[in-house]
Amino acid sequence: MVIILKPKTKQEEIDKLTNELEGEGVKVNPVIGTDLIILGLVGDTSKIDALKIEANDIVEKVMHVQEPFKKANRLFHPDNSIVDVNGSEIGGNKLAMIAGPCSVESEEQLTFVAEEVKKLGANFLRGGAFKPRTSPYSFQGLKYDGLELLKIAREKTGLPIVTEIMSPYDIEIFERDVDVIQVGARNMQNFDLLNELGRTRKPILLKRGLSATIEEWLMSAEYIMAGGNENVILCERGIRTFETYTRNTLDLSAIPAVKKLSHLPVIVDPSHATGKRFMISPLAKAAVAVGADGLIIEVHNNPEKALCDGPQSIRPNDYETLVQELKAIAAAVGRVL
Amino acid sequence: MVIILKPKTKQEEIDKLTNELEGEGVKVNPVIGTDLIILGLVGDTSKIDALKIEANDIVEKVMHVQEPFKKANRLFHPDNSIVDVNGSEIGGNKLAMIAGPCSVESEEQLTFVAEEVKKLGANFLRGGAFKPRTSPYSFQGLKYDGLELLKIAREKTGLPIVTEIMSPYDIEIFERDVDVIQVGARNMQNFDLLNELGRTRKPILLKRGLSATIEEWLMSAEYIMAGGNENVILCERGIRTFETYTRNTLDLSAIPAVKKLSHLPVIVDPSHATGKRFMISPLAKAAVAVGADGLIIEVHNNPEKALCDGPQSIRPNDYETLVQELKAIAAAVGRVL
Amino acid sequence: MVIILKPKTKQEEIDKLTNELEGEGVKVNPVIGTDLIILGLVGDTSKIDALKIEANDIVEKVMHVQEPFKKANRLFHPDNSIVDVNGSEIGGNKLAMIAGPCSVESEEQLTFVAEEVKKLGANFLRGGAFKPRTSPYSFQGLKYDGLELLKIAREKTGLPIVTEIMSPYDIEIFERDVDVIQVGARNMQNFDLLNELGRTRKPILLKRGLSATIEEWLMSAEYIMAGGNENVILCERGIRTFETYTRNTLDLSAIPAVKKLSHLPVIVDPSHATGKRFMISPLAKAAVAVGADGLIIEVHNNPEKALCDGPQSIRPNDYETLVQELKAIAAAVGRVL
Amino acid sequence: MVIILKPKTKQEEIDKLTNELEGEGVKVNPVIGTDLIILGLVGDTSKIDALKIEANDIVEKVMHVQEPFKKANRLFHPDNSIVDVNGSEIGGNKLAMIAGPCSVESEEQLTFVAEEVKKLGANFLRGGAFKPRTSPYSFQGLKYDGLELLKIAREKTGLPIVTEIMSPYDIEIFERDVDVIQVGARNMQNFDLLNELGRTRKPILLKRGLSATIEEWLMSAEYIMAGGNENVILCERGIRTFETYTRNTLDLSAIPAVKKLSHLPVIVDPSHATGKRFMISPLAKAAVAVGADGLIIEVHNNPEKALCDGPQSIRPNDYETLVQELKAIAAAVGRVL
Repeated sequence: MVIILKPKTKQEEIDKLTNELEGEGVKVNPVIGTDLIILGLVGDTSKIDALKIEANDIVEKVMHVQEPFKKANRLFHPDNSIVDVNGSEIGGNKLAMIAGPCSVESEEQLTFVAEEVKKLGANFLRGGAFKPRTSPYSFQGLKYDGLELLKIAREKTGLPIVTEIMSPYDIEIFERDVDVIQVGARNMQNFDLLNELGRTRKPILLKRGLSATIEEWLMSAEYIMAGGNENVILCERGIRTFETYTRNTLDLSAIPAVKKLSHLPVIVDPSHATGKRFMISPLAKAAVAVGADGLIIEVHNNPEKALCDGPQSIRPNDYETLVQELKAIAAAVGRVL
Repeated sequence: MVIILKPKTKQEEIDKLTNELEGEGVKVNPVIGTDLIILGLVGDTSKIDALKIEANDIVEKVMHVQEPFKKANRLFHPDNSIVDVNGSEIGGNKLAMIAGPCSVESEEQLTFVAEEVKKLGANFLRGGAFKPRTSPYSFQGLKYDGLELLKIAREKTGLPIVTEIMSPYDIEIFERDVDVIQVGARNMQNFDLLNELGRTRKPILLKRGLSATIEEWLMSAEYIMAGGNENVILCERGIRTFETYTRNTLDLSAIPAVKKLSHLPVIVDPSHATGKRFMISPLAKAAVAVGADGLIIEVHNNPEKALCDGPQSIRPNDYETLVQELKAIAAAVGRVL
Repeated sequence: MVIILKPKTKQEEIDKLTNELEGEGVKVNPVIGTDLIILGLVGDTSKIDALKIEANDIVEKVMHVQEPFKKANRLFHPDNSIVDVNGSEIGGNKLAMIAGPCSVESEEQLTFVAEEVKKLGANFLRGGAFKPRTSPYSFQGLKYDGLELLKIAREKTGLPIVTEIMSPYDIEIFERDVDVIQVGARNMQNFDLLNELGRTRKPILLKRGLSATIEEWLMSAEYIMAGGNENVILCERGIRTFETYTRNTLDLSAIPAVKKLSHLPVIVDPSHATGKRFMISPLAKAAVAVGADGLIIEVHNNPEKALCDGPQSIRPNDYETLVQELKAIAAAVGRVL
Repeated sequence: MVIILKPKTKQEEIDKLTNELEGEGVKVNPVIGTDLIILGLVGDTSKIDALKIEANDIVEKVMHVQEPFKKANRLFHPDNSIVDVNGSEIGGNKLAMIAGPCSVESEEQLTFVAEEVKKLGANFLRGGAFKPRTSPYSFQGLKYDGLELLKIAREKTGLPIVTEIMSPYDIEIFERDVDVIQVGARNMQNFDLLNELGRTRKPILLKRGLSATIEEWLMSAEYIMAGGNENVILCERGIRTFETYTRNTLDLSAIPAVKKLSHLPVIVDPSHATGKRFMISPLAKAAVAVGADGLIIEVHNNPEKALCDGPQSIRPNDYETLVQELKAIAAAVGRVL
């Protein structure tokens, strides 16, 4: 941590702040110039609250030198983490191919899509039972009935199921019934929910918030990990920018950034990022090329009749073509599908 | 609702879509040009899901003509709503002046600040008992003990208390103990929490999410109102942009926008928007000048020792000066403090 | 300037970098911890190129401590600058009230509007002769004929004229004919144009670019000032964000920020920021309340027939009402109209 | 074009507007509902100025149905455009591999890098002679001497040269000496410069502005094309968002978007997008996978000594590795290097 003091701060005020800081166990090294006074702090600065120091009238600004996350930090865990989901791994050499409908609509629909995507190369089934919708008047999902249908589809296909949780009330049921618990973008900083999920040992798929920086996203992973659950998988799904042609802007540079900063696996959701069907295939290829550990893609047997997100769902035969095309890209970056 | 079809769509496909739409009770008017086919829909389009139509291969795009919110819409409720909080009103001629520390720290601190701000002109007390913090390692608030201290401060000063809820588990306690329940920016689209709050009759202070459009913000108000609780107060607190000098960018144009679109009261939080003490006074004045119904401002007796948000807290004497200066601005726009 | 080195950098590499830096005339103070090596630089760091240092393999990052602008910096010029425009001042106690049509359309139109706004309280006339338009097919302004009409209107009203330059080819003509040369938002980083304007001594109205940080904006002012022309007036006109209800987001927090960082006058353009007529009056009031040195507002006698920007133009009688309402706000913040 | 009128507009006002619009040669189809009046316009709406209509008091809003660009529009030019640069093509099956130093520094440096990148697979040489820098105090390029050095390097290697123009004064020299004239991001809406470039027949590399929407970017291409120069190559180089870990956010979804909307070739600049060396290789692979027609990459023999942009320059041996890895990705998407 580096603290910049205001130009004409008196020596006694510098000493007072230095004493306070050293009382918290760090070593303070002053660098004093004519227009500039810098305090360089070394030692364990993790207990020092930058905002508290910044509130001091003699302080111009406080600059962080080290990343604020620890358990998610690659510095302290140089090897890639691999999350085990009932024997299927996410973060290893094999790409996680998660596919399925936006929302669970009926047993026939879900089972049909699940069997199709399994046959075509998917190794996880997605499907929303609880749906976060901007409007209270939109279809909100089949809820607990949807979970039951996911279990049936899992039984028929053997695919582990990935579905979104919206309420801490449902944690016990999700812990029992679901293989990967998804935290949606809008709940990325629902700290109450993150704390509760930290107490489980289930794999958590943590989507990046629409306006979350990479650091904030990793801090949300840190919340879950600090609670004791290190099975976190990150998911980039587009950030909010001024561009409106695409619904969000898929930030593929976040993948190499996360890989450098953290050891956690990170996958990409090209369906929600763009909201446009024709973009899914090129962005899925780009995601694999940039180093993502997997893809979560919406596949629907009949997108026009989908109860949600039809425009961004692809049909099983498009998924088949995509999977075939991805194989060469994956091989080019040392991965397998 | 206006539907743009792809240029060479066949008449039979147009008829098929028209039939489907008319089956949902709207009247479809086709406008057919050489390169352009438009379907103009009139009637109650609220049940029509735009995404479902957009998923159709013959559809180029769907454009909304009317706002998707109803209960929050000024169109159906031309007069300003005034929210009653134990006899104090928000949204009327008198400005809501909400003040107090970022977090509740101790009985002495809270009571001292509460008495000061009351004396200086505040008519509501704010104070965080449950604190949403980016880092799991930061101070998370005194929680239930903090609520007790707020009750003591209310008893001593008579000021209604405004404090943030983070978990649906706490709704009963908040309903019983708190006067205005605040929903923080990070929970603006925590739909589970919004649904639960819709079942109470407590005034809700709904902060705008960091990357929420004005329409999404009003849709979140709609969630609460659709549940039956029409006591919603909106709060602008800065949006996330590329500018980093200020922590967020206070969007004061949102105030006249909300006033045009909705009948709900809307206040401004200049403290969280900027994170910088010297900006609070000018932005508070601007907020009143632009038409806000009130201000929520962090006041702390000793900002350097504040357990959170010190750099954006002002001292009681600064608050005093500000209140005095605001009086003339308020008068200039026909309001009173 | 503070340089953070990578954790295990060898002493000989630190020495090599230190020698290089000291060769550029600064003093380097090393702060060495177990996981952290900081070099604190004091002295004149203005010649040191941060990117060059950052390109070094041993460097983790370089952090600026001081603002990169000098002539625009309040640190070296504590008093407010007042720009003199033929005897009218911008930046002093009296607010600059710049008004007029978006584009110059005809002698009758311009003279009519000019006389109206003068009568109602404007002290400068704006009007576009050269119009930057997103589409090559839109009306591009009357160009040199427009300048002639502006001169006629000036002669009739005595109001100094403010108009936008688009090409360095026109500098001589603008120097001769125009009172305040406006640089539009899209040209804020047209460094070629800024350099040329630095060679004149004309007042320059420098609009903030749509995605320019406050620092970049002040650096563009620095370009003009470094060339020898210190008559720079800044103008906030909205930045580009994710919000689409307003065309841009007016960043009123930029006003106190600029006032703290720089001594230059700064005015606000509420017309271009929102693109919506009903927002101009509340935002103009907020701009004065927040501390702006003036307002530039589009006034048109017949907005429906305006050749550009009709939806954001107000009529003379609306301007009259606004000016009256602004008087009390101005008085409340110690200014006069 | 679709015009939404205010709910209670009188028939005579509708008729008046309809007459005016039909006077401009379009057919107006009214769709009249209880709360909603829509006018659907068919025919050539290109002469109708939406802002003029929107300025009308009876108009609620005007919605565009068709893209405002024509010459750049794939609708009227279904085949991909291929730009010929002295016999080398951009936009065809073979990827354009543009490489070289950020700025031209000396004959030795430039010739060395040019020979290296040619040997390793580049087919165009980049190098800045005129450098747009945020600070007036930074190195601004060797200017005309730099152009001479580029010509020497071209002579030695046979690589066509790509370099940025900053002033319309230099167009004649660039036309004579340069093979591809680059327009930088900051000048994307320097309409004066675009107009002048439209009069040449040189290939123009048009970088996307930091806050330009895809539509605005294509409108800037339209400016050049409307002048008669259809040799436009687009270049995505990152947009400005709230994320600060990367300097800008590379918008790879813009590539499939541009490919759908336009027939123009589009390449990607991963160097400027991130400002970080370790991200260039993964993003270059993603760019090829997503469908870009080429890559422009900064290569420097000694990044620590580079006069600009050292942190984002890679060394020739990194470029060699990258080119090898790109071959398989290119093959997977049907392209060759």
